[in-house]
Amino acid sequence: MTPTTMATEMAEQPEAIARTLAALRPLRPRIRELAQDRGQILFVARGSSDNAAIYARYLLEVHAGRVASLAAPSVATHYRSRLDLSGALVVSISQSGQTEEIVQTQAWARDCGAATIAVTNVADSALAREADLALLTEAGPERAVPATKTFTTQLTAVAVLATALAEDPSALDADLDRVPAAIEKLLAERTGVDAAATALSRTNEVLVSGRGLTFAAAVETALKLEETCLRPVRGLSYADLRHGPIAIVDPQLVAIVVAPQDGPMVSGLTELLDDLHQRGAITVGIGGDAGFAQAADVAVAGPDLPETVAPLALVVAGQLVVETLARQLGLDPDAPRGLHKVTQTDR
Amino acid sequence: MTPTTMATEMAEQPEAIARTLAALRPLRPRIRELAQDRGQILFVARGSSDNAAIYARYLLEVHAGRVASLAAPSVATHYRSRLDLSGALVVSISQSGQTEEIVQTQAWARDCGAATIAVTNVADSALAREADLALLTEAGPERAVPATKTFTTQLTAVAVLATALAEDPSALDADLDRVPAAIEKLLAERTGVDAAATALSRTNEVLVSGRGLTFAAAVETALKLEETCLRPVRGLSYADLRHGPIAIVDPQLVAIVVAPQDGPMVSGLTELLDDLHQRGAITVGIGGDAGFAQAADVAVAGPDLPETVAPLALVVAGQLVVETLARQLGLDPDAPRGLHKVTQTDR
Repeated sequence: MTPTTMATEMAEQPEAIARTLAALRPLRPRIRELAQDRGQILFVARGSSDNAAIYARYLLEVHAGRVASLAAPSVATHYRSRLDLSGALVVSISQSGQTEEIVQTQAWARDCGAATIAVTNVADSALAREADLALLTEAGPERAVPATKTFTTQLTAVAVLATALAEDPSALDADLDRVPAAIEKLLAERTGVDAAATALSRTNEVLVSGRGLTFAAAVETALKLEETCLRPVRGLSYADLRHGPIAIVDPQLVAIVVAPQDGPMVSGLTELLDDLHQRGAITVGIGGDAGFAQAADVAVAGPDLPETVAPLALVVAGQLVVETLARQLGLDPDAPRGLHKVTQTDR
Repeated sequence: MTPTTMATEMAEQPEAIARTLAALRPLRPRIRELAQDRGQILFVARGSSDNAAIYARYLLEVHAGRVASLAAPSVATHYRSRLDLSGALVVSISQSGQTEEIVQTQAWARDCGAATIAVTNVADSALAREADLALLTEAGPERAVPATKTFTTQLTAVAVLATALAEDPSALDADLDRVPAAIEKLLAERTGVDAAATALSRTNEVLVSGRGLTFAAAVETALKLEETCLRPVRGLSYADLRHGPIAIVDPQLVAIVVAPQDGPMVSGLTELLDDLHQRGAITVGIGGDAGFAQAADVAVAGPDLPETVAPLALVVAGQLVVETLARQLGLDPDAPRGLHKVTQTDR
């Protein structure tokens, strides 16, 4: 059987991440220069890139001690507000660098006084050309519609941004170097992947949850499942789930929970698995520690990496489940119905 | 038939909003004092209160020219990061003022140098006591589990915050005074409400969308539908929908789109209704202008109010649909399965 383009591109991720690390680390002095005296970091993104921004904001706040948040592009593109962004570094993320809304919002941010950094896979894009600094991901061309290697290299780029701004980046830097091998291992072993796809193939009601640094891997897995397998999937944070929607959990539901193997979130996410199981849902745990895996009905192996960089590999475990499920369902993961590679929010 | 407690409390909203406006407007000089020289406003909230924060961030950026965003409480409660918040005004929103996570995050923000404002319905709560300033909503006790009047008075409180920080608050102030009568009219006329509930009762696949200032009314309607009618409901922004999940729209889906009657979002949201209809979904339009209502399969009347304050009444149109649907389904809207009035994120 010929592997799908999605599978081929997933397999390219270890090298793409290593290349991106090598290409972007030398730009750290320039990142520090742009961030100087700017107390606030704002991310501008949509779709998968928005999920990369979620990881970025946690990593910057938790690891680099910088206040970071997500901007609302329509404030620029539709309401045309004038904000004082002289104290802000604005980081725009777009695979193609062509999404009009993101290009416009970056231009607006600059007019409002922000320093601008573009994270994109296309050197010759408007986003890259017009930024104060472009952090080019080294994913190479991506042909499958679902973003895989362009997403994990975006995570890599924002992690390099965090190492540039952290007081002591040595631990994060060393951990980033371990990511490619950890992903190789997940791709080779596929532990729990087929069982998870089988559980998911039996339902049309799927929920994906996570919390904190690895929440980005949860929402990206939800988005990929929805796009690729054409299922309605809800990506909900642990907190949002507890504040209401947990009422709708029932035996038709398959709940995927994504967790790191260490850090302050593991125990709560393990309890969440228990709670979902008691309410009758079938649970799929991706990652976590031994107790977490034991609490899940189906355990998909995660990486042996600390929480700070675990999302880069946890999302690959999610990709494996999605690609396998799409094939089980007789769908073409490379070209899902109704989607195009470059998405314009407004047409 | 005795009205449900939820319906009774919904009917109290015009007065509760008028009381809240009267109580909070005199506090504007103190709000301005706390915000002085603070370039950034951060909201801390969960659940329905988080939806109020979404309205707040748009209103502050669009109407008051202030950079505003939503904080991630776990950065405080779990990662215990130290951030420099000396340039931030932190606004915490919690109906009960007792949600431990929000109380802790406010205390953390203060330790990090932020000025703090609490928006809560309970004067004698930890959140109110420990803030630099408490903006008390005048909703009175709320007995039904689904938040209605406490939510719309939260929207009122953050709108008063925006009037305090806007250069010229006169238009917004005048529009706020029109809100109670506009809600009275919606509650009395219920145009389209029963037809919308009937359309929703025939499906188990519901999506709610909106954009910009009125997006908060869309996600709050989604949350209430899910909590009260025990359906899995996805609340997705216009942009997030376009960037992927639109692939899963099919004839089983009922799509609710919430729109204001004026402003830059109406045309795009009308096109979204057309697009969803062409993909086979049954569409329910809440609010909008005449063209928007015509594009919807079922049109629920919205208020005759400008976009800036429309969310306060649009969410009431959503409440009417939810309460009616719950009764049609034989459910008790006052006490949905699995939920409690004061939600603790961690237990």
